[in-house]
Amino acid sequence: SANKKLLILPGDGIGPEVMRQVRRVIDWMDRRRKVTFDVQDGLVGGAAIDQYGVPVSDETMADALSVDAVLLGAVGGPKWDNIGFDKRPEAGLLRLRKELGLFANLRPATVFDALVDASTLKADIVRGLDLMIVRELTGGVYFGEPRGIEELPDGQRRGVNTQVYTTAEIQRVARVAFELARKRQNKLCSVEKANVMESGLLWRQEVTKLHQAEYSDVQLSHMYADNCAMQLIKNPKQFDVIVTDNLFGDMLSDEAAMMTGSLGMLPSASLGAPDESGRRRALYEPVHGSAPDIAGRDLANPIATLLSFAMMLRYSFDMNEDAGLIEKAVQNVLNGGTRTSDIMAPGMARCSTSVMGDSIIREL
Amino acid sequence: SANKKLLILPGDGIGPEVMRQVRRVIDWMDRRRKVTFDVQDGLVGGAAIDQYGVPVSDETMADALSVDAVLLGAVGGPKWDNIGFDKRPEAGLLRLRKELGLFANLRPATVFDALVDASTLKADIVRGLDLMIVRELTGGVYFGEPRGIEELPDGQRRGVNTQVYTTAEIQRVARVAFELARKRQNKLCSVEKANVMESGLLWRQEVTKLHQAEYSDVQLSHMYADNCAMQLIKNPKQFDVIVTDNLFGDMLSDEAAMMTGSLGMLPSASLGAPDESGRRRALYEPVHGSAPDIAGRDLANPIATLLSFAMMLRYSFDMNEDAGLIEKAVQNVLNGGTRTSDIMAPGMARCSTSVMGDSIIREL
Ligand SMILES: CC(C)[C@H](C(=O)O)[C@@H](O)C(=O)O
Ligand SMILES: CC(C)[C@H](C(=O)O)[C@@H](O)C(=O)O
Repeated sequence: SANKKLLILPGDGIGPEVMRQVRRVIDWMDRRRKVTFDVQDGLVGGAAIDQYGVPVSDETMADALSVDAVLLGAVGGPKWDNIGFDKRPEAGLLRLRKELGLFANLRPATVFDALVDASTLKADIVRGLDLMIVRELTGGVYFGEPRGIEELPDGQRRGVNTQVYTTAEIQRVARVAFELARKRQNKLCSVEKANVMESGLLWRQEVTKLHQAEYSDVQLSHMYADNCAMQLIKNPKQFDVIVTDNLFGDMLSDEAAMMTGSLGMLPSASLGAPDESGRRRALYEPVHGSAPDIAGRDLANPIATLLSFAMMLRYSFDMNEDAGLIEKAVQNVLNGGTRTSDIMAPGMARCSTSVMGDSIIREL
Repeated sequence: SANKKLLILPGDGIGPEVMRQVRRVIDWMDRRRKVTFDVQDGLVGGAAIDQYGVPVSDETMADALSVDAVLLGAVGGPKWDNIGFDKRPEAGLLRLRKELGLFANLRPATVFDALVDASTLKADIVRGLDLMIVRELTGGVYFGEPRGIEELPDGQRRGVNTQVYTTAEIQRVARVAFELARKRQNKLCSVEKANVMESGLLWRQEVTKLHQAEYSDVQLSHMYADNCAMQLIKNPKQFDVIVTDNLFGDMLSDEAAMMTGSLGMLPSASLGAPDESGRRRALYEPVHGSAPDIAGRDLANPIATLLSFAMMLRYSFDMNEDAGLIEKAVQNVLNGGTRTSDIMAPGMARCSTSVMGDSIIREL
């Protein structure tokens, strides 16, 4: 079959150094698994601002639209903190999500057995945790109009953003979540603030309708977002799949990720609508950020990005065997006691980004 | 001096039963401390809906506006889940907050030494935790217009809410937070999503301006809300005072409260602007909700509501000695090993709501 087309956007901070380890795995696959990717490179975030003056160029957008999948590192950093709102690094990521139509963001929060003690939560609360947050990614307050800052006649200013959701936006992301639940523990929890926001009430009503019409076999519950923030801490294992809007999903998925103690380990996938052949546009990225404080020091954990690549093999290319090889190699390395600083623990061997890459390639 | 005027609104679920213990403490003060309160009672939430068809009546609103302070239990429950949006129990609480002008919601997250092990977080992460979240309470997406659900021509529906903040709204709540920080560890962290929302960018700019103009002695930092949700779990003791908007404050304060393991112990205060004599309108309520699952079974922990009453004595009436007596009594009872179910632990004596009340009165 034709080569798989891949766009790699390392981005800022630790993005380039963790992505280098992915390139090594791709080279390994090329040699050993006879799978070749057409890999294009591009800039996004601060790196693109420095080069082109915009956080993602039209050329890079065109590339992203033409490939089979995009792999992204991370964007942002203090260097670009005081740039205009439309030009900031994050705007590049948001444009990619919006123009690729990536409405469903899958963020697993999984606790690796070898890392149970890295969590600040008690071991019995998080051991074996495996939950999936499906976050709506192209709507809500992130993109709603009107928005902006206006000067008022009395010298005051007024900042406005708009939370908007339509029936169709809610149903398509809920559908992804129901389908995932069916392949897992068959439990879905839908999260909003229907007691305060009409957009949340609509969310609850539309999810309920879809459940009755097509997914009544899935166990559905509803929860307010503030309560969900609490329940994640009280008893995270009560959840299987959570579906929620863009803003609540941003916070709840970060909360869940940090709880695992494995933040440097967590991949994510952002998916578009399937086309006639069932293929979806897709972007994969680690859950962690650009970590400017440790960037360029060969300290970062490359595993989240490697596992994002594995997720791509699975979701975009149906290469389950190859994905499994990478995941297994990661697990073996962890079980062997090799640790980057973020997951270091007594009795383990501390290693650098590149040595973690070496170890994983050796396992492969 | 004239009697202090107090409005008590027990509300729904466990509200009435925990409030009964407060009435006992008020009676005790009357007898032993010679402090008399003019106590009025009223209905709010589901209780008011059942009686008057609205979640807070105009008469109760008038009472709330005329007293020195309001003490509220909790509102809401499944019985009123399918009532219209404007008539739901929560609307009563929101009307009180808005019409009393209670823009600053103080939510301490404190870990009681006797309860360190009740947290799902490791003891060394939470021991000694004492942070204060100042949540904006009368603005943002809770009250912004336009809002509602509209039918679209194609049969779809569209839900809208609006996040709005003005310079004045941001500055007055930030001022409360800066003042609190000065009396504590002198550290303030301001939380928003300035990287995604213009209203958050305005928030950041206005807090920064106020800091430079009047509070440059306070150590100020800024954090994105998703990162704050993570940092609370990673290392909650890095924070002293957090100031944030209505919606982020709703989630982050619940997250922080659950982390303490002492949810049934946490009071809160909602304050208005000071008048010429320096007095502020105020409403006090426990952080926990109405807990319909255990309502009416004499199981609930009355301490959060008792401590809310103590907070009222302190903030509204300058009765620091009396507040201290109540707080000390609570601590002694806990140290003695008496526990309601929510904070029960091996080796302790489980007790009911009313027996917890007995024990505290005995200590007094
Ligand atoms: C970088 C930022 C714009 C982004 C978001 O808020 O969505 C990030 O926090 C994320 O969760 O991917
Ligand atoms: C009951 C509800 C309207 C309320 C809120 O969202 O503010 C509650 O969650 C709170 O935090 O006091």
